[in-house]
Amino acid sequence: MALNHAKVFKQPIKALLLDISGVLKDGDIPIQGSVEAVRTLQTMGFPFRLITNETLKPKSTIRNTLQMLGYKVNEQDMQCPVPFLKEILIRENLRPHLLLHPRMFAEFDGMDLSNPNCVVMGDAEEYFHYDSLNQVFRKLMDMQNPILFSLGINKYYLDDDGLSMDVGAYCKGIEYATGVKARIVGKPSKEYFLKAVDALGFKPEEVVMIGDDIEYDVGGAQECGLRGVLVKTGKFRQSDESHPKIKPDAIVDNLQQFVDMCIKVQDSKQQ
Amino acid sequence: MALNHAKVFKQPIKALLLDISGVLKDGDIPIQGSVEAVRTLQTMGFPFRLITNETLKPKSTIRNTLQMLGYKVNEQDMQCPVPFLKEILIRENLRPHLLLHPRMFAEFDGMDLSNPNCVVMGDAEEYFHYDSLNQVFRKLMDMQNPILFSLGINKYYLDDDGLSMDVGAYCKGIEYATGVKARIVGKPSKEYFLKAVDALGFKPEEVVMIGDDIEYDVGGAQECGLRGVLVKTGKFRQSDESHPKIKPDAIVDNLQQFVDMCIKVQDSKQQ
Repeated sequence: MALNHAKVFKQPIKALLLDISGVLKDGDIPIQGSVEAVRTLQTMGFPFRLITNETLKPKSTIRNTLQMLGYKVNEQDMQCPVPFLKEILIRENLRPHLLLHPRMFAEFDGMDLSNPNCVVMGDAEEYFHYDSLNQVFRKLMDMQNPILFSLGINKYYLDDDGLSMDVGAYCKGIEYATGVKARIVGKPSKEYFLKAVDALGFKPEEVVMIGDDIEYDVGGAQECGLRGVLVKTGKFRQSDESHPKIKPDAIVDNLQQFVDMCIKVQDSKQQ
Repeated sequence: MALNHAKVFKQPIKALLLDISGVLKDGDIPIQGSVEAVRTLQTMGFPFRLITNETLKPKSTIRNTLQMLGYKVNEQDMQCPVPFLKEILIRENLRPHLLLHPRMFAEFDGMDLSNPNCVVMGDAEEYFHYDSLNQVFRKLMDMQNPILFSLGINKYYLDDDGLSMDVGAYCKGIEYATGVKARIVGKPSKEYFLKAVDALGFKPEEVVMIGDDIEYDVGGAQECGLRGVLVKTGKFRQSDESHPKIKPDAIVDNLQQFVDMCIKVQDSKQQ
């Protein structure tokens, strides 16, 4: 790729949004070059923020994992769906029924979970089963004004043993059975992307999102006026390169390659 | 309802298609008046055929249950999805991976299930779980030309303890995650309705379908040129009466009421 001609470099890049799973790490394994790439950004003082749809683990656990893998990041650098959701629940006086991995329940300590008036679904792995899904279905069918939140709407993610279905698949099934359209908390919701952009202190057109999900990282960011870069790590599949609708502003082997390109472009402009 | 003015009676009715669950029985309990109604049809020599999306039990078991409840019907009177599917699999040289209730596996005895080149989903109750769904997802993602069959696409059915999600919800999730559109075997597929109409020896416009599923019994039949009658038994919900798109040709309390109306209309025309 001729660097200066790559679509993504046509405007200056002032800050980055980085997906975590598939960009920084796969499960508990760092992606080659990504620890160094993040260190480079930090050394250069280049603003970035981690933005994830991860709901299998609390934010503090994700931070611990990242630190263990060598990333010098803290919770202020990260945006996760659950804290964002909790703000909405409080603002709208909602009492959720939770279909989440049980290790997430403690995040809701102190919230009123009695007599639920909404349902929250996040990735739940083996806790997605006939009884838990049927319970969600029945609760929504019984509500006068059913409200369903989905923490992301991703189709699948890269698990230790291959691709695995994500919350989006289960949520679409519930939507179909109940006729209730889910409110998405996480990428690709505009609210969620713009909160991260605001936290960086830039405008959407100054920021580039880097992720392994062609639809919800790349396409979602583009819908919000950001540029979207697809990495060929994580759950990337060859067919993503010829997606019928979404054309990434760049496709790179991995985060490190993109960060190296940024530096070269910047250097060439300074010469 | 003024009988002669009901939309359904504007053309002569020459034969009936009857749904089983929600019209003849709920679980293992006969619906009030339905045993008598079927007996009336048989006494009058009025042609009818039972058409179901039931895939939790083999055809022979459904027949046994119906006979035990007092229905004098046999397998030739019934159309079920699995035998219909098996004809397709044989015709198209397909080797299915099955996501079905294990009690259905014997129905596939003698078929080649090795190295599957398609997936079949039917209602599986508690056998819908993270592993079985993920397995289906992965098999489809790995196939060069993925083929997915769904035995019906119903949203929910009336279970012993309330409404329960049906295969349609799980199938829609799989469709979303994989991007593969399911081929439906069962109502509301045109092929399936027309096979039942053919077996009766009439034209679609001469036949009335009676069911408790506003979309797939009533709407599905109407799409095929039959008339569709909704019963207020089984999974019927008040909101079905004001469905935004589907207007049944009649809405009746139960099968017996409809059969009685048929007789009265016929009598009044003979006078």
